[in-house]
Amino acid sequence: MDVSAAFSNLRVVLVSPRNPLNIGAAARAMFNFGFSRLRLVNPYEMAFREARSAIGARDLLQSAEKFPSVAEAVSDCALVVGTTSLGHRGLQHTIHRLEKGAPAILVQMEAGPVALLFGSEKFGLGNEDMAHCHWLLRIATADQQHSMNLGQAVAVCLYELSRGALDPPGAPPRAPKPALAADAEQITRLLLEALEKSGYVNPVTAASTEIKVRRLVRRLDLSARDAPIVLGMLRQILWKLAK
Amino acid sequence: MDVSAAFSNLRVVLVSPRNPLNIGAAARAMFNFGFSRLRLVNPYEMAFREARSAIGARDLLQSAEKFPSVAEAVSDCALVVGTTSLGHRGLQHTIHRLEKGAPAILVQMEAGPVALLFGSEKFGLGNEDMAHCHWLLRIATADQQHSMNLGQAVAVCLYELSRGALDPPGAPPRAPKPALAADAEQITRLLLEALEKSGYVNPVTAASTEIKVRRLVRRLDLSARDAPIVLGMLRQILWKLAK
Repeated sequence: MDVSAAFSNLRVVLVSPRNPLNIGAAARAMFNFGFSRLRLVNPYEMAFREARSAIGARDLLQSAEKFPSVAEAVSDCALVVGTTSLGHRGLQHTIHRLEKGAPAILVQMEAGPVALLFGSEKFGLGNEDMAHCHWLLRIATADQQHSMNLGQAVAVCLYELSRGALDPPGAPPRAPKPALAADAEQITRLLLEALEKSGYVNPVTAASTEIKVRRLVRRLDLSARDAPIVLGMLRQILWKLAK
Repeated sequence: MDVSAAFSNLRVVLVSPRNPLNIGAAARAMFNFGFSRLRLVNPYEMAFREARSAIGARDLLQSAEKFPSVAEAVSDCALVVGTTSLGHRGLQHTIHRLEKGAPAILVQMEAGPVALLFGSEKFGLGNEDMAHCHWLLRIATADQQHSMNLGQAVAVCLYELSRGALDPPGAPPRAPKPALAADAEQITRLLLEALEKSGYVNPVTAASTEIKVRRLVRRLDLSARDAPIVLGMLRQILWKLAK
């Protein structure tokens, strides 16, 4: 496996980071383990500016990309994985322990871009952020009450990913090429539109329905081949509903 | 293996740490991964005092022990392992990669105290410190010129040591229960009906479309939980299409 090519496919996405030290620490860990693509969703402007001097990772920070939303930050990725330190009980995401989930991420990294999301220092990823994720990754800790430091969590995840890459577990299983997040999002929007027009959506609970539908579409694990078919179906149904 | 007993045998030894943030970060990582015995050799007094507020690790920091020398800090240990980020060429130490060396440390931890040494942020472990070590541990990084952040290096080492050992309390990650074939078939029928009513299905190729839709629905890999949701959506859309 061409490690550097695969590693360039990982986008480390920090959602609403507040502390410049943590942004710098994440960048330094990426640099240490051979990753290069850092994305920031809605960072505190000050924090981002101050972080631009992390040891050894200056170029990486200079080329970091900023996005106003998670949807935009992950749109070119076929696999979107969120991290959570605690057993998240709200939405029914599949949660893998880091050492179990890492091989699946590596397989996808060989095929194309993968997003690995980290939430803010204080709150982690919110439900709306997680709705963009196919599944969640958890670092097994002894203590369930306290989350890890952001920079340390990034370092541990990237260590595990590079650990597997340098010692690959046999031939990777062949999986169908997954649909891009942008396609999944378009399907979500068209499906929501169809459901609204059909009276499925209760206006009072519309926001929660949107999150549920978004999650549902991610769980479908659509392939790149099937996504346009589903889009075509939805467009036709919408056309009919509009008449 | 009694994890907590074995883990209490590890002494994390920070040699001449300067930055209170790094002492706090090391303590927090120890707390996260279930280790408790922190030792400091010749710390900057100020740094040590300031570090005593690390999130979740206050007790651990309060009980940290100070020693004037490495010799005294490791005197009760049967195995002393130093960490180095760079290939150290001075002393003829055996250097193990972290994932290869960790099992050897775990075996010793079951028998008695083991010391794991981390050098100062700026210089790492000196030759005199390393002379107390049986062998060295190295975290494999992509870049050989820049060392890791101290707090991140501690987190990665402790993650690797606890990697196989910490089992998640409570329910293991669940794979969603798949939908029954009968549900998939009902979804297929309702979807076909909606597509027919929407004019998606060309009567000439209807039979082949039906097969394609049936296969598409199977590829979606619906869970038992999602199947009734999708059925409800389709019923509502059909109801609207019929109007």
